Amino acid sequence: MYTFGIDVGGTTVKCGLFTLEGEALDKWEIPTRTEENGGHILPDIAEAILKKCTEKEIAKEQIQGVGLAVPGPVLENGDVSCAVNLHWDYKEVSKELRGMTGFPVRVGNDANVAALGEMWLGGGRGASSMVMVTLGTGVGGGIVLRGRILSGVHGAAAEIGHMCVEPSETEYCNCGKRGCLEQMASATGVVRLARQELARYEGKTVLDAETLTAKAIFDAYKEQDPVAAAAVRRMAHYLGIALANVACVADPDIFVIGGGVSKAGQPLIDAVLAVYREYAFPVCRNIPIVLAELGNDAGIYGAARMVMD
Amino acid sequence: MYTFGIDVGGTTVKCGLFTLEGEALDKWEIPTRTEENGGHILPDIAEAILKKCTEKEIAKEQIQGVGLAVPGPVLENGDVSCAVNLHWDYKEVSKELRGMTGFPVRVGNDANVAALGEMWLGGGRGASSMVMVTLGTGVGGGIVLRGRILSGVHGAAAEIGHMCVEPSETEYCNCGKRGCLEQMASATGVVRLARQELARYEGKTVLDAETLTAKAIFDAYKEQDPVAAAAVRRMAHYLGIALANVACVADPDIFVIGGGVSKAGQPLIDAVLAVYREYAFPVCRNIPIVLAELGNDAGIYGAARMVMD
Repeated sequence: MYTFGIDVGGTTVKCGLFTLEGEALDKWEIPTRTEENGGHILPDIAEAILKKCTEKEIAKEQIQGVGLAVPGPVLENGDVSCAVNLHWDYKEVSKELRGMTGFPVRVGNDANVAALGEMWLGGGRGASSMVMVTLGTGVGGGIVLRGRILSGVHGAAAEIGHMCVEPSETEYCNCGKRGCLEQMASATGVVRLARQELARYEGKTVLDAETLTAKAIFDAYKEQDPVAAAAVRRMAHYLGIALANVACVADPDIFVIGGGVSKAGQPLIDAVLAVYREYAFPVCRNIPIVLAELGNDAGIYGAARMVMD
Repeated sequence: MYTFGIDVGGTTVKCGLFTLEGEALDKWEIPTRTEENGGHILPDIAEAILKKCTEKEIAKEQIQGVGLAVPGPVLENGDVSCAVNLHWDYKEVSKELRGMTGFPVRVGNDANVAALGEMWLGGGRGASSMVMVTLGTGVGGGIVLRGRILSGVHGAAAEIGHMCVEPSETEYCNCGKRGCLEQMASATGVVRLARQELARYEGKTVLDAETLTAKAIFDAYKEQDPVAAAAVRRMAHYLGIALANVACVADPDIFVIGGGVSKAGQPLIDAVLAVYREYAFPVCRNIPIVLAELGNDAGIYGAARMVMD
């Protein structure tokens, strides 16, 4: 038996054909055609899937199903409320794609599905309950409890980036609130913090406000640059407390940190762990915080895993 | 068919006999005998149950099972890791009580079980996912997701009282950390805040540091006493932000507030709601926050409900 894992992004659709053991037989991409309200996206995916079956000489009966990761809130029945990057309004995604392919279809929010992928074959292998935090342009989250994705009643479970970590913050987050974790721990967040540190620091630093990036900050952090150290310390403070608070709610086996900023690697993890352990509830103090391992493939793996339950 | 719902406290064991529709046929109490490492507690409960069956002329086959709420962390298999108030070390509670009665037994942590009770027949009626916060001597929590209690991997899910809401706090919480919600929103917490306000306030107030209680503070709050207003404002600030952050993780249908402090009633709820709405993620902003309705009976109702799945 085989499954398809499909991760629908705003510019490309990542596709994978997997065995039930997680071996990737093939991985490929097709463009995301968002014109005409994204009306081509599902037909394009259906065509790609059916073509792949023919190419690999796989009979329809050998396909257990298709898992789909979508950038938007997903309801229990596989409908998607909206997905702005795909130009979708409300769409019966599961039903439509099932109609086009004849295969069972499971749909999940992309951040949650990536968490499932990391738990299956990545940084969270062996866990039954896991919280993943993705530090990218924004801060995303995915929660898997007892093997099942937690979507939440309004599709807002695991919106860890929008936990308030600084009630006195005066600048606004994209969500309209102030003091969100995303304002501190995303790529743009850590740049924002470093800019603030630069403005009040008068000594030597390799950082330059004009060319500031998250990568430059973490590179400088490894070289013990004082401004980078101050910015990363603040970022780790907020992220560590946020994870300690998530543990008080969900109490998982493990935290997995992914996204572009996580390329900062173990020095970032160490900084976050130090704060986490100080603020975590005693029995949660030793929950590991580890790096994600599947990179951009987490979505297709998680999507494939979804259809196995 | 009938179920027994048993809520084991440090001084009394509350017992209830229920129909599957939640009608209470009988409610009574027996003392909790904690001597000899609490070794009498389960035999006493077994005896009370079997005697009640005889008294009510209910055949063993008509009992669907016994639900037990215990003040301590409960593992998936019904074992209890420890329960200091009952003088229990590790105990195979489910297995032992099943052996003594012949009935199926389900065991849950008392805060979680109370949440299940409130969801079945109390403030959270009709919800499928609910977060309950109990404001008593401490701050407890219970989370039910898609109808199932969330215990957490280390029995620490829903330890909402130990979320850090004030990283700069210098006094210590009973848990050994600083800045916990429990230090702000429990009965002792709001007294602590009011004491701080009293110390720096020089105008007129009906509050007196010597005789300060949570009840006195909320009574004064309703009379617009300035010190009480400042203390309740701070308490509501911390509780509102904590609930907004819980919503970013668990995204429930409803929040239910119980415990002794919740007798302050709607004025407390209103103060918390105002803060909650300011800090909640947009799609979670209208999640209702309501008062618990079952009082001290939430535990026996929830325990009875546990055995129905």
